[in-house]
Amino acid sequence: MTLPIDPAANLATLIRCPSVTPAEGGALSALEAMLAPLGFAVERPVFSEAGTPDVENLYARRSGNGPHLMFAGHTDVVPVGDEGSWSHPPFSAAVHKGEMYGRGAVDMKGGIACFVAAVARRVADGRPIRGSVSLLITGDEEGPSINGTGKLLEWATAKGERWDAAIVGEPTNPQQLGDMIKIGRRGSISGVITVHGRQGHVAYPDLADNPARGLITLAEALLSPALDAGTRDFQPSNLEITSIDIGNPATNVIPARATAAFNIRFNDTWTPETLQAEIHNRLDRASKRGKFRPDRQEPIGFDLTWRDRPSEVFLTRDDKLIEALSESIRAVTGRTPGLSTSGGTSDARFIKDHCPVVEFGLVGKTMHMVDERVALADLETLTDIYSRFLDDWFA
Amino acid sequence: MTLPIDPAANLATLIRCPSVTPAEGGALSALEAMLAPLGFAVERPVFSEAGTPDVENLYARRSGNGPHLMFAGHTDVVPVGDEGSWSHPPFSAAVHKGEMYGRGAVDMKGGIACFVAAVARRVADGRPIRGSVSLLITGDEEGPSINGTGKLLEWATAKGERWDAAIVGEPTNPQQLGDMIKIGRRGSISGVITVHGRQGHVAYPDLADNPARGLITLAEALLSPALDAGTRDFQPSNLEITSIDIGNPATNVIPARATAAFNIRFNDTWTPETLQAEIHNRLDRASKRGKFRPDRQEPIGFDLTWRDRPSEVFLTRDDKLIEALSESIRAVTGRTPGLSTSGGTSDARFIKDHCPVVEFGLVGKTMHMVDERVALADLETLTDIYSRFLDDWFA
Ligand SMILES: [Zn+2]
Ligand SMILES: [Zn+2]
Repeated sequence: MTLPIDPAANLATLIRCPSVTPAEGGALSALEAMLAPLGFAVERPVFSEAGTPDVENLYARRSGNGPHLMFAGHTDVVPVGDEGSWSHPPFSAAVHKGEMYGRGAVDMKGGIACFVAAVARRVADGRPIRGSVSLLITGDEEGPSINGTGKLLEWATAKGERWDAAIVGEPTNPQQLGDMIKIGRRGSISGVITVHGRQGHVAYPDLADNPARGLITLAEALLSPALDAGTRDFQPSNLEITSIDIGNPATNVIPARATAAFNIRFNDTWTPETLQAEIHNRLDRASKRGKFRPDRQEPIGFDLTWRDRPSEVFLTRDDKLIEALSESIRAVTGRTPGLSTSGGTSDARFIKDHCPVVEFGLVGKTMHMVDERVALADLETLTDIYSRFLDDWFA
Repeated sequence: MTLPIDPAANLATLIRCPSVTPAEGGALSALEAMLAPLGFAVERPVFSEAGTPDVENLYARRSGNGPHLMFAGHTDVVPVGDEGSWSHPPFSAAVHKGEMYGRGAVDMKGGIACFVAAVARRVADGRPIRGSVSLLITGDEEGPSINGTGKLLEWATAKGERWDAAIVGEPTNPQQLGDMIKIGRRGSISGVITVHGRQGHVAYPDLADNPARGLITLAEALLSPALDAGTRDFQPSNLEITSIDIGNPATNVIPARATAAFNIRFNDTWTPETLQAEIHNRLDRASKRGKFRPDRQEPIGFDLTWRDRPSEVFLTRDDKLIEALSESIRAVTGRTPGLSTSGGTSDARFIKDHCPVVEFGLVGKTMHMVDERVALADLETLTDIYSRFLDDWFA
C-alpha cells in the first residue's frame, strides 16, 4: 500500500474533485482513502438545515497516548469564475514552471494535502506521534457555513471528543510562506436598513416622502465618526456599506422604499451586542435630524434587521501553541512569523469555543482568483513545518 | 347624421378604446369619426424613431375666417394598474352614481370629448366660429413623448400651419372644476451619477475602494443647499433622488460601482444649461472632499450623464388668452381660477415654441389611479366652458 507522503500528489487528487460548495465532488472520499491506511478512524456526518443544502463533512481520529491536536479545514472551494480566463483548467491540477494550478490549490486543499503528508511521513518512517490527532474537515466553509464546522464540533463533542489545541490550515501568508500566523479574528456583523417613504410624482414632492433623503442621512451616521481607533491586538473596526438599493426605473417617480446593507468587521472594543446597540443609537439619533427637508420635521421611518449570525471577535492566548508553531516555522524557513488578527472570518471562530486555535497554511495571494496556484516548493516547506510542529507541540 | 354633441357619449366611445401607450386602440379612429361630420379635415401622421415604438397621431383642421386656435391633447392612457381593484372594468365606461369610470376619463379623453361636444353644439345650432380651429392629438404623451406632440408640431409647421393660441385639455383642477388654469410649467432635467470604486472583500477595505462612500457624499451635494427659494411666478426648484442602486447581494463584498438617478423640476431662475453647470460644479467640489475616508484623499471618481431631453421652464404672457379663458370659467362656474405654474411637465412645453399656450381641463384627482372617473356634471360644465371660450377668444 502506498502511503500519501507526497503533498503534491495528495493535492492533485483533491483538486481533481470539483467540490464547489456545497458539492462534495469526491473530495472527502479521496481524503478518507488517504487517511484510512494511516490508522485514522473516519466518519462522514451529513448535516441539514431547512433552507440550506445538505452538506457532507469528515471527522477522522488517530488515537495516541497524550494530548489531542485538531487540524481543521475545508475541502469545498469557491466557484471558478471565468473558466476561459484560466491558464490551465481549474480542476486539472496542471503543473507549469514549478506551480500547480487549480481551484483550492491554496484555499485550502493544499493545507490539507500537506498535513496529511506530514502525518504519512511519520507513519512511513515509523516515528510515533505522542498523542491523538484529528482532522475536522467540512464541505461548508465557503458557503453559508451552517452545516459545517459549527455542527461538526457539536456532533464530535456530543460523542465525547475533547481537544487540547487546534490548527486551521487556511492560507495565512500574504506573500511568503512563514509571513504570518493568525492568532485571532475580528468579529463580523451584517445588517440591513430599510427606510420607508411615500411614493409619488416628482412634480408633487409635498405629496410624497422620498426615502432616499433619509437613507443618505442614516448612511452618514453609520460611516461617521469612526467606530474606534484600534486596540493593542487588533486593527480599527471598519464598517462598509455593501449595497444601497431602490430599484426605481422611472425618472418621474419618487420611490416608496430604500435599503442599505452594511457589514462591520469589529475588534475587541466590542461584543456583537454592544456594537448593535451603538448602531441602533446612531441611527435613532440621526433619524431625528431630517436634515435635507427643513420643512419636514418628522423622524425618518426606518427598520434595522441583522443578517446571518454575528461572529464574535476572539484572540488566542495559548503561549505553548503559538510558540510551538512559530518555532517550527522559524526552524524550517528561517523567518519569524508575524502574529496577526487581520483579515476575514474563518471557521476558527467556531473552534475557539472548544480549544485554543491558531491558523497557518500556504500563501493566500491567488485564493478565490482565476489561476489559483501553489509553488510545489511551498507544499514541501509547509509539510516540513507541520511535521516539525507535530514534534514540537507534542513534546 | 348624429353630431357628437354629448360629451358623455363621446367619452364613453373613447374610453372603450384600450389605447394604453403606445397602442392607438381605435381611439384616434373614433375621434376622426366624430370630427369628420363637423367639417374637420383630418390627417393621421405616424412617427417613428429608432429605439421607440411607432406612434399614431391626429391633426384635424376646421378652417374659418379669423385667427387660428389649437386644442391639444392625447388619447393614449397609462396602464390600468391592478385591474382587479377597479370597481368597474377600466375600459367599460360604466356609469355609477353620476360618475363615469374608466382609464383616461379625466387624463384626458374627457377633455377631448368636451371640446368636440363644444364645437359640435355650435355646428348643430348653426352658430359660426369666427376663425380656424385645429385639434392636435397625440398617442405618445404618457410614453417617451418622442413620436408625439413635438414631431406633430414640426410636421404641421412644415405644411405651413401657424397658430395664434393653444389650449391643452389636461386635467388642471386639483379639487373642483374651475380651480386652476396652468399658465406655465417648470422645466425638468434628469441625470445619473455613476461612482467608480474598486471591488474587494470587506475584510480588506484598504485593497478596495467602496463607491458607496463617494455616492453618499455626492448625493448630499445634490440635496443641499437648496437650489433657489422660488420666484414670483414659480415654486422653488426641487431635486429628488429617484433611485440609488448598487445591487450587490454579497454581505462580504465591497462593490465596484454605485449609481444615483435624480430629477430636477426647476423654475425660471435657471435654464437647462445653467442648471447643468450648477450640478457639475457641486459634484466636482464634493468629489474633492472624500469625507468618510480621512486616509483616502484622492477625489471621488464619477461620471454624470444627462437622461432624456431636458424640458425648459416657460411662462405664458398672453393676457387676451388667459383673460378669455378665466372669464369663461367665471361665467360658467362662478369661480375665479388660480393661475398656476405648479405640477409636472406637459406637452405644452412643445407648443410654447409655436404660440401662447394655457392648460385647462377636468379635475385631476383620480388621474393615473385605480377607479379613474369623472362626474357627468363636470363633463357638461367643461363643455360649457370650452363653448363660452370659443365665443370669447374669437370675439
Ligand atoms: Zn478557506
Ligand atoms: Zn395627460
